[in-house]
Amino acid sequence: MSVTIKEIESACEEIRGSVVRTPLVYSYRLSARLGCNLYLKLETQQATGSFKDRGSLHKLLHLDEAQQKRGVVAMSAGNHAQGVAYHAARLGIPATVVMPTFAPFSKIERTRSYGAQVIKHGDTLDASAVVARELSERDGLAFISPYDDERIIAGQGSIGLEIIEDLPETDAIFVPIGGGGVISGTAIAAQARKREVEVYGVEADRYPSMIAAIRGEEPKFGETTIADGIAVKLPGKLTLPIVQERVREIFLCNEDEFESAIADLAEQQKLVVEGAGAAGLAALTQNKEQFKGRNVVVVICGGNIDSRMFASVMSRFLVRSSRMVRLRIRIVDRPGEMSRLTGVISACGSNILELHHQRLFSDVPAKEAEVDALIETSDAAHGETIRQGLQEAGYETQIMETTTGSI
Amino acid sequence: MSVTIKEIESACEEIRGSVVRTPLVYSYRLSARLGCNLYLKLETQQATGSFKDRGSLHKLLHLDEAQQKRGVVAMSAGNHAQGVAYHAARLGIPATVVMPTFAPFSKIERTRSYGAQVIKHGDTLDASAVVARELSERDGLAFISPYDDERIIAGQGSIGLEIIEDLPETDAIFVPIGGGGVISGTAIAAQARKREVEVYGVEADRYPSMIAAIRGEEPKFGETTIADGIAVKLPGKLTLPIVQERVREIFLCNEDEFESAIADLAEQQKLVVEGAGAAGLAALTQNKEQFKGRNVVVVICGGNIDSRMFASVMSRFLVRSSRMVRLRIRIVDRPGEMSRLTGVISACGSNILELHHQRLFSDVPAKEAEVDALIETSDAAHGETIRQGLQEAGYETQIMETTTGSI
Repeated sequence: MSVTIKEIESACEEIRGSVVRTPLVYSYRLSARLGCNLYLKLETQQATGSFKDRGSLHKLLHLDEAQQKRGVVAMSAGNHAQGVAYHAARLGIPATVVMPTFAPFSKIERTRSYGAQVIKHGDTLDASAVVARELSERDGLAFISPYDDERIIAGQGSIGLEIIEDLPETDAIFVPIGGGGVISGTAIAAQARKREVEVYGVEADRYPSMIAAIRGEEPKFGETTIADGIAVKLPGKLTLPIVQERVREIFLCNEDEFESAIADLAEQQKLVVEGAGAAGLAALTQNKEQFKGRNVVVVICGGNIDSRMFASVMSRFLVRSSRMVRLRIRIVDRPGEMSRLTGVISACGSNILELHHQRLFSDVPAKEAEVDALIETSDAAHGETIRQGLQEAGYETQIMETTTGSI
Repeated sequence: MSVTIKEIESACEEIRGSVVRTPLVYSYRLSARLGCNLYLKLETQQATGSFKDRGSLHKLLHLDEAQQKRGVVAMSAGNHAQGVAYHAARLGIPATVVMPTFAPFSKIERTRSYGAQVIKHGDTLDASAVVARELSERDGLAFISPYDDERIIAGQGSIGLEIIEDLPETDAIFVPIGGGGVISGTAIAAQARKREVEVYGVEADRYPSMIAAIRGEEPKFGETTIADGIAVKLPGKLTLPIVQERVREIFLCNEDEFESAIADLAEQQKLVVEGAGAAGLAALTQNKEQFKGRNVVVVICGGNIDSRMFASVMSRFLVRSSRMVRLRIRIVDRPGEMSRLTGVISACGSNILELHHQRLFSDVPAKEAEVDALIETSDAAHGETIRQGLQEAGYETQIMETTTGSI
């Protein structure tokens, strides 16, 4: 049994007005960089910050009245939890969400703020799922799967209908894969409207569960990923055959690629996007040659990134793109020396962001000292120019490794 | 002579296809918080990250061929520079932009990246303007004013047409005021379509030039503002009478209010917005009682905030909203003590983000030491709970002032 276009069309009707019909935005800057016509489907603009609103609402609307009264239970580390909690509260349905102990603080708080009862339990999603299933049986609560459910898949499918409605010229759609719900629904809908649309999936290389299942291989998992929204170990039973049939290729991205895509979407397109939400851009960036000149839609599936994590990704990106450079400069430790040093840096056209004068732990002679300066630069060449300028002014200077500067 | 709706309609036609028809997005979360129906007009999605694309392009299109060949000159610390540079390059018009020396690094780089010749000159915008005017006369370049020009105002006015087209039920529109170009165009257009639409302006309280001009007062200026995009000392000659006639009220916002609005737009709506771009939300937040139950549109006019500044605003916001708390804890300096201490914090349900063990500069007895811990909390009450928990475990603990934590 699979999901049909009819079910997606009816889901789309039913949820209209209670979820955002999200904008499809053309990105001039990223299109120019990637050589294709890039459109972004902004699911970050949903009420709970991700596409999960669509499927959750559709599923909740189809529970019978008695079940709506008894309530629902879900298991999730993040976006699904919020989607279920938010729409259950809107509809007056009691909701319990089991979240693993490692779920980000902010996501737990937000789920709770919608009025759901949050149970923190389990060191893994699997352990949380066991508790959720137990609660479901014990209290007669409907278990709301994050992806392995026709109603959920049909709800997410509304994304595909909207894309083709807004851009009939769509050639390819990039969709992140966790359990496979949103890519399944989107592919069915988009290809029903336009048979030849190519759909591409993206997984984290640390969680390659769908690609492994398709290849019949045993996946190897990493510990963590910034794309936590798609860190799923087992693809859905319903979604696997849909992906097999409809998805042309699945790309794997690593942590650096996710981080760069998050930073690019913030800097170039002014969007706050979580790791999983940036997956499509990460994959397109790695494979841009394949899509030259084509009309590509990337589903920006969610924006629920911890603010602290986001700030840290932005800062790390500045360091990695050599727009912040750390210099270690040897100076003679005498009055007036710091003033002269900072004058030289300024004359080289850079701003000083931080200065650390260290003496206790350096191996330079007692009458000398080392200064670590975090400076603002336009690129790596500019950093090197400043290093040379300092050297010429008599300061022995080295550029430190481009690891994260403290901000 | 003023700008008419006919000119705005024709501007809208002429620039279509070369600027983004930006989405108007309903914000469920901010609407719930503010008690109105809040719609955001996302000018951040323009190619250069602000509404400036509209007016610049319209102006450039109306230069005669000889002038287009000779080129243009503009003066700007930021968004106008980028708008002119980008569209001049697209149209093959040579562009020179004079930017003051204090202009953010990133904005200078970006303007240059579009192909404009950037001249860094002047410690103030006025000084830069003098140079730009001189270049204009010397080389026969057309001077492109950021706001005091009918073509520019008419171009920005397309925002007002789009708003009423997308939301005919609009009751009120909030628009930031720098020189007054975008609010003038938007007000003329929106009120031509729907006479009773109320338009509200927002200025930084450190740059209250328009409100002072209307009141006939001498404005007092502050040094800097995070809303640098609207830090204008002299309102336009063309815009002043339009604002006087059409704008119902001008609100002033302070730096804290801008910062909070930037953080709210990032956290609640997943948008990267610059200070000026967040001005409308800042003003609405301060005056929400006045707009209860109404359909309010806030023009999110730009997203060109320095990434480092943005990261810092996000971090500061976490501290100010007590979601990061710094504790100073006195411990006996013996082996195993840190392990016990961190165990207590963890048992209180908090994550430790940073630990500083300081000994040299504290005034505690030599056998004791002070530990500064930056911890993650859900709110101020949670921070206090943890402090008490530590106190009960025998640690003298104080919550440090909520200034910025280092990240």
